[in-house]
Amino acid sequence: MKSVHFFISTVAALAFATFLVSAYDPSPLQDFCVAINNPQSVFVNGKFCKDPKLVTANDFFLPGLQIPKSTANPVGSTVTAVNMDNLAGLNTLGISLARINFAPNGLNPPHTHPRGSEILVVLEGTLYVGFVTSNADNNRLISKVLNKGDVFVFPIGLIHFQLNVAIAGLSGQNPGVITIANAVFGSKPPINPDVLAKAFQVDNKLVDYLQKQFWYDNN
Amino acid sequence: MKSVHFFISTVAALAFATFLVSAYDPSPLQDFCVAINNPQSVFVNGKFCKDPKLVTANDFFLPGLQIPKSTANPVGSTVTAVNMDNLAGLNTLGISLARINFAPNGLNPPHTHPRGSEILVVLEGTLYVGFVTSNADNNRLISKVLNKGDVFVFPIGLIHFQLNVAIAGLSGQNPGVITIANAVFGSKPPINPDVLAKAFQVDNKLVDYLQKQFWYDNN
Amino acid sequence: MKSVHFFISTVAALAFATFLVSAYDPSPLQDFCVAINNPQSVFVNGKFCKDPKLVTANDFFLPGLQIPKSTANPVGSTVTAVNMDNLAGLNTLGISLARINFAPNGLNPPHTHPRGSEILVVLEGTLYVGFVTSNADNNRLISKVLNKGDVFVFPIGLIHFQLNVAIAGLSGQNPGVITIANAVFGSKPPINPDVLAKAFQVDNKLVDYLQKQFWYDNN
Amino acid sequence: MKSVHFFISTVAALAFATFLVSAYDPSPLQDFCVAINNPQSVFVNGKFCKDPKLVTANDFFLPGLQIPKSTANPVGSTVTAVNMDNLAGLNTLGISLARINFAPNGLNPPHTHPRGSEILVVLEGTLYVGFVTSNADNNRLISKVLNKGDVFVFPIGLIHFQLNVAIAGLSGQNPGVITIANAVFGSKPPINPDVLAKAFQVDNKLVDYLQKQFWYDNN
Amino acid sequence: MKSVHFFISTVAALAFATFLVSAYDPSPLQDFCVAINNPQSVFVNGKFCKDPKLVTANDFFLPGLQIPKSTANPVGSTVTAVNMDNLAGLNTLGISLARINFAPNGLNPPHTHPRGSEILVVLEGTLYVGFVTSNADNNRLISKVLNKGDVFVFPIGLIHFQLNVAIAGLSGQNPGVITIANAVFGSKPPINPDVLAKAFQVDNKLVDYLQKQFWYDNN
Amino acid sequence: MKSVHFFISTVAALAFATFLVSAYDPSPLQDFCVAINNPQSVFVNGKFCKDPKLVTANDFFLPGLQIPKSTANPVGSTVTAVNMDNLAGLNTLGISLARINFAPNGLNPPHTHPRGSEILVVLEGTLYVGFVTSNADNNRLISKVLNKGDVFVFPIGLIHFQLNVAIAGLSGQNPGVITIANAVFGSKPPINPDVLAKAFQVDNKLVDYLQKQFWYDNN
Repeated sequence: MKSVHFFISTVAALAFATFLVSAYDPSPLQDFCVAINNPQSVFVNGKFCKDPKLVTANDFFLPGLQIPKSTANPVGSTVTAVNMDNLAGLNTLGISLARINFAPNGLNPPHTHPRGSEILVVLEGTLYVGFVTSNADNNRLISKVLNKGDVFVFPIGLIHFQLNVAIAGLSGQNPGVITIANAVFGSKPPINPDVLAKAFQVDNKLVDYLQKQFWYDNN
Repeated sequence: MKSVHFFISTVAALAFATFLVSAYDPSPLQDFCVAINNPQSVFVNGKFCKDPKLVTANDFFLPGLQIPKSTANPVGSTVTAVNMDNLAGLNTLGISLARINFAPNGLNPPHTHPRGSEILVVLEGTLYVGFVTSNADNNRLISKVLNKGDVFVFPIGLIHFQLNVAIAGLSGQNPGVITIANAVFGSKPPINPDVLAKAFQVDNKLVDYLQKQFWYDNN
Repeated sequence: MKSVHFFISTVAALAFATFLVSAYDPSPLQDFCVAINNPQSVFVNGKFCKDPKLVTANDFFLPGLQIPKSTANPVGSTVTAVNMDNLAGLNTLGISLARINFAPNGLNPPHTHPRGSEILVVLEGTLYVGFVTSNADNNRLISKVLNKGDVFVFPIGLIHFQLNVAIAGLSGQNPGVITIANAVFGSKPPINPDVLAKAFQVDNKLVDYLQKQFWYDNN
Repeated sequence: MKSVHFFISTVAALAFATFLVSAYDPSPLQDFCVAINNPQSVFVNGKFCKDPKLVTANDFFLPGLQIPKSTANPVGSTVTAVNMDNLAGLNTLGISLARINFAPNGLNPPHTHPRGSEILVVLEGTLYVGFVTSNADNNRLISKVLNKGDVFVFPIGLIHFQLNVAIAGLSGQNPGVITIANAVFGSKPPINPDVLAKAFQVDNKLVDYLQKQFWYDNN
Repeated sequence: MKSVHFFISTVAALAFATFLVSAYDPSPLQDFCVAINNPQSVFVNGKFCKDPKLVTANDFFLPGLQIPKSTANPVGSTVTAVNMDNLAGLNTLGISLARINFAPNGLNPPHTHPRGSEILVVLEGTLYVGFVTSNADNNRLISKVLNKGDVFVFPIGLIHFQLNVAIAGLSGQNPGVITIANAVFGSKPPINPDVLAKAFQVDNKLVDYLQKQFWYDNN
Repeated sequence: MKSVHFFISTVAALAFATFLVSAYDPSPLQDFCVAINNPQSVFVNGKFCKDPKLVTANDFFLPGLQIPKSTANPVGSTVTAVNMDNLAGLNTLGISLARINFAPNGLNPPHTHPRGSEILVVLEGTLYVGFVTSNADNNRLISKVLNKGDVFVFPIGLIHFQLNVAIAGLSGQNPGVITIANAVFGSKPPINPDVLAKAFQVDNKLVDYLQKQFWYDNN
């Protein structure tokens, strides 16, 4: 485990997180299956495909990932996801990408990807990252401080987090799919307070307080 | 969403949870691959196989699932897991089983299965169960009160929980793999308090308190 | 191989069989894909999905598995299957469940699951169960007598059977998909008698007799 | 369903059956994984791989498939299988092949492939082939008479058979893995006679007779 | 590597190539999914299925593979492919077949199968076959001369070729999906000449010449 | 198709290419399977795993991806691959990463990934990229000019290329696995010249010339 010394800082950070959505059906029966919106409100597992004859280069293209996005939000970070919803050619290929901007003192709260592993590369700044192993492995924390050019891997389904600790500034961002705090305390409708009071060993007042927080969803 | 009325109760509950460990390699190249301990501290993805010629019926057999286990523990419940570790024939078949005993007022805290979906059947008592959808679906709570003979499904990777609310007694049990509270507040070593304070919007004192709790791992 | 002593008995039995339908696409591209009936008589591999925005807890719920079903049928048993046809939320999750009621002296005739492994737990009574390995393993019989609380595994695709031999009462039930006797002698239209006469080394008269039997399909 | 007229004949037949062993791991992490015998009686799911640096063309090569084999056996046919056991390069590629020689009046008894679909092409003679759908589809017989150059498909796990009916000569061959009659009546040790008597609706005397037959395994 | 001596010859050749299209979804949720044309110009990954109730034996049947096809074309060969486009029952079964006729002096130019491994059996004549390993293995050529009855395997995705060298006659055929020369020099529109000049270390004149060739697509 | 105007330039480029190695076994049976060197020259499909108890954060970490590498080589580019060989934690997670440095006037020659799709993001400069569809789609060229921040997708198995055309400078790099020109003209031993002469419709002299070229492998 890394021991991390914290100093004041206003250094921002930037990272690319690529995560594999384990589609388990990478274009099995044709060259590609460019996603289209489900016609006539009929749905399939994944997406319907565009007529291959009408497919063009633009179906595999997405511009603008270099444009910085404001990180003026409660978590001080912004994720720009690239997936089949905005890059149709990714459908069935089982891979996606995200650009993450970190403001100083942000945080990527603990989260999981229910259907993907993640590989992260730091482009700017310093991140303190970690994941927690499952119960069978006694919930060990596997953590590391990453600097520019470092790469780190987060196995599928495990809870992990990322902070911008560049010279110990704290900032964070969630490229993930399930933000633990949001899911546990911010679900709609709320989870029965007795569940959470018992689960977190706190009284119902605190649960009530936590459930009343505004949870900013940065995805 | 279910609205649930709570009354005093001491009714226990019993459930079978079967969950699919998505092995994605169900005995592809032979009839079975009965697990053996990794020889010479060499490891593979999954387990090495027993010599097929030496395989007997006992390799596919596990007795004693009817024996009640004490639920005298902090969460008031006990899970009896049946997986490749105690039933070697399950190796590569991608399926496992668990018997769950619920004492009154127990709780199965929110958890996820990183590698499996779950189907639950209630044998005794009443359970209040639910899961929370991912961020893309706005973390909706999908919950239900289950009575004897009811079946419920928890999709792979989503955070879910189960309580014994038999006539509103609260008890719980975790057939799962990652207990959120344990993983977040009970990891070894602990997650940096600043991460958790920011993630849960509480001060470091509370995080410190939470991290000091004894977290009973009921798996 | 178990040597089994048979005595008269009228003890019934009850078992849960959970079998994994190896869907190989466990919710790869969204949280869930709740099955709906194929619209406009168009079909896909598996099922079309319900609009996720319209999904509720009831889509993951099935009541009534505790209700005993009459076993007054030729095989003296009844299976209550829980699959995507009656529990839509199971679609793409690759798992299903079955409750099996055994009357005395029933039988689960040899059968196979073309697309699933099975794990069985005995809730009441005693079952004599077994499976036969493939030709490469010389069709070995792997069998065992199971009592209350015992668990047994049947690998994908192998022919297996279950009898209620509680104190040697014979009863059976087929949670499976292909009943060998039905498929071989009860197909519609019938298989050419010369095939079966040669296959089973009996004369055409017996084949004719067997094909004339009423085959009760207990699935 | 085909109606087939039978006349005397001594015409032999020849077919190639290719069946896909659904390995579900087609060389995922390197170009190939040439099978070697399990070292030190340690086993894995599938086979260990030869050192890639030592791999040569001969590892992907098998000669002699044109050599006719004697069909002087009880089923009047011989199968020459090509799989990872005799063509090591096939390991992890999920495909295999078989040459089938049919003597007149042979039979390929009903059988299943627990882990593969099959595609058959007739090189000589005429075959009467069929498969039986699962219980959910009411065990329909899907059958056809095939002549030289015809191709037929047998879906994974379904019971099927093939006869040489070249001008109605009967001969057969089993490219499969589980021969139903062998597995049901010829298992070692035998299945409890009460099971089979009930399953096939015949008396124990006949079951005893059937179990006493010599079952030739032509694989 | 084989050293091959070449003599004049006019011997033709014939081969069956079976290749596995790694569909990774072999009929997971029903017995079969017989392909139908996409209705209303809607597309899915693979094909929509025919109503199972309307499926007949003809959906699994294709006649005429014995009929020789003219090899009077620039590559002196013809492939007769059997796949889900002309044999609907193959849909989702992950397997296909091809008959290959070789005229003297034809050639199967280097090609790859993006989604399948291949197993080849020589029915007539002699073929000189080979594949090239990937960069990580230093692009080794694995080649062999095959005679009647020989079998050879080509791992998924690797570039390979086949020639009829029966007593050194040259003939070829492409059972594959991507013909390298066609794809590189015959794409529509053409690849930028600077790319190819640099890639093949030749001047633009030659690239221009190559791009002007008529590329016969024998698939 | 893009029409591209070319001007002189010396602008370098930088890109990240992430490609999914379709491992089809993403950590199915434990949290992770950190790769170790094959012990005692025994090999498995993929890699053996490190003892989980000995796994640390460094097993998921690789530093130095920001360090520019010399592009002073024949193709004027360098790829820095991040895969299970240098980042052991990636084993079984089915994902990998590559940093690509482009010198002016380099080229990423046409290549394929036999086992992966690729997603590319441009960090600096401008790339002219494209892929060619398979024969069934008539080898269409799908190409595009990408600028800083643009993302492009290359489906699994299809031949593709990338050039640095920043203001039309040409440079390239191959993050791929099979470089077509290397594999076809630079294999060891060489492919029979008659094959290539016929395949590319050129005389043997040119083939001889091409085979004599030094092929720099930039992977």
